[in-house]
Amino acid sequence: MIPESVKIVEVGPRDGLQNESRTLPVPERIRLVQSLAEAGLKQVEAGSFVRPDLLPQISDTSQVLSGLDMDAGVGYPVLVPNMRGLDNALSAGAREIAVFAAASETFSQKNINCSISESIQRFSEVAKTAIDQGIKVRGYISCVLGCPYTGTVSPEKVLSVARSLEDMGCYEISLGDTIGIGTPVATRVLIDTIVPHIPVERLAVHFHDTYGQALANILVALQAGISVVDSSVAGLGGCPYAHGASGNVATEDVVFMLDGMGIHHGVDLSRLIIVGRSICTLLDRPVMSRVNLARAPIDFEV
Amino acid sequence: MIPESVKIVEVGPRDGLQNESRTLPVPERIRLVQSLAEAGLKQVEAGSFVRPDLLPQISDTSQVLSGLDMDAGVGYPVLVPNMRGLDNALSAGAREIAVFAAASETFSQKNINCSISESIQRFSEVAKTAIDQGIKVRGYISCVLGCPYTGTVSPEKVLSVARSLEDMGCYEISLGDTIGIGTPVATRVLIDTIVPHIPVERLAVHFHDTYGQALANILVALQAGISVVDSSVAGLGGCPYAHGASGNVATEDVVFMLDGMGIHHGVDLSRLIIVGRSICTLLDRPVMSRVNLARAPIDFEV
Repeated sequence: MIPESVKIVEVGPRDGLQNESRTLPVPERIRLVQSLAEAGLKQVEAGSFVRPDLLPQISDTSQVLSGLDMDAGVGYPVLVPNMRGLDNALSAGAREIAVFAAASETFSQKNINCSISESIQRFSEVAKTAIDQGIKVRGYISCVLGCPYTGTVSPEKVLSVARSLEDMGCYEISLGDTIGIGTPVATRVLIDTIVPHIPVERLAVHFHDTYGQALANILVALQAGISVVDSSVAGLGGCPYAHGASGNVATEDVVFMLDGMGIHHGVDLSRLIIVGRSICTLLDRPVMSRVNLARAPIDFEV
Repeated sequence: MIPESVKIVEVGPRDGLQNESRTLPVPERIRLVQSLAEAGLKQVEAGSFVRPDLLPQISDTSQVLSGLDMDAGVGYPVLVPNMRGLDNALSAGAREIAVFAAASETFSQKNINCSISESIQRFSEVAKTAIDQGIKVRGYISCVLGCPYTGTVSPEKVLSVARSLEDMGCYEISLGDTIGIGTPVATRVLIDTIVPHIPVERLAVHFHDTYGQALANILVALQAGISVVDSSVAGLGGCPYAHGASGNVATEDVVFMLDGMGIHHGVDLSRLIIVGRSICTLLDRPVMSRVNLARAPIDFEV
């Protein structure tokens, strides 16, 4: 049931950068997105349209979009938190947006000051407007395997949120293990709860590597037939809930695993490693990808 | 087929320390081994009896053994390269030894200056002598998923070496992915090649995390019914083939995964984290365990 090919959604320039302490100037952000596309990634998050004071590291996303070629066969989704963000995204030429909801009420309140159902209502309006204008909408679910405030999250709650996102027209739903607490059995249980109700082709996984579990969880997802994986070049984006810990799973490490398994993904690992190193140099932060740290994958067929 | 319980073989004080640049004084090595046993580990490698000039970091293993309580229900295996090493190990009161062979001829030559079959002959004598004296013998196989010099290693070659180790009386055979190049499908193919011929209960896995693949590979091993996993506290022991890269998989990360999966292992993760931090402080090296870096596992049932 393991897919023959996997689509990697590169979240470094959005989910990565928004969790970094340094702010990258717009030209560098454009260059980062372009170099990731040049490395073969087909979906590269370009930024977010949240209030600049909240997330300065990814403000000016309009300017980033203006520097990108929207017709080159690569998607550049942007995160949109509300109608104003959508307006700005549309004015800036965005072709794809992402909305999000949490599977934990407390997390929803603390993160965006409203309940899950209020957030669903808000995003339904955003999604409908976007879809009416021919814009694709991706949905993210946070805390699918655990909440930093309340602990356990039930798979049924995740399913309920996933259904809401599907109902509003999301073409893909990314299951986010926001605090990296997931482990393989829990991951399988979650996917088994969701898949009877939502087609597996619509599902993506977004694991954090805070506790080193990401690749094992991704493997479980692949074994369950999921074929879309979110990751971040060089593991950009630390974990805001565990200072100093790693956050997003590194794209290089995912690619290495897929390569070894004979799964197609379209990414040139050597080029990606170079992008990862240069962005970490620019951000003055350590590379969080094991593959990247090992200097070079050994050049032979295994 | 996933086991209900797993035995973790802690290799930090031997495989870890021998690959560290600093040499730890004997009292600290004893304290390390003791604190790992106190954290619940039941098999803790205490050192090696190779020539001191070759591996100064783990010379004086006799003194380490003399500081340990051999009757406390914890095993303290020591690596033994030859008959002289065995004599010294026996004089020092060792109750269990480990021998090793490579699945790659070139690696065997470069590592211990002899062919695989010569090494098997040498170790057969060591094993026989040890077993005659009531000493348990564990066998290690290096390069089971790839060789740093020649690349691909055939599973059939690994099986052949495993059979030789079994024939000489090894009670357990640890399959070592020496350069960390293994990925889940190759791991499964390897295990599927070996298991029809060698009982799964006799097999252990020793993955390196150089490319971040260790936990995914361990998961595959568990899915195949293997119930013995080697790991190193805090991920001690870098990779000698990729400078600066990680080496041994970190025990804390393995324990976290097993905990999440509901698999028994007997290790107290909180105590282990403390041991990992203090040994890394002593060695003045970064902690290579993601779990340990995340400060504390979140204290709730997921």
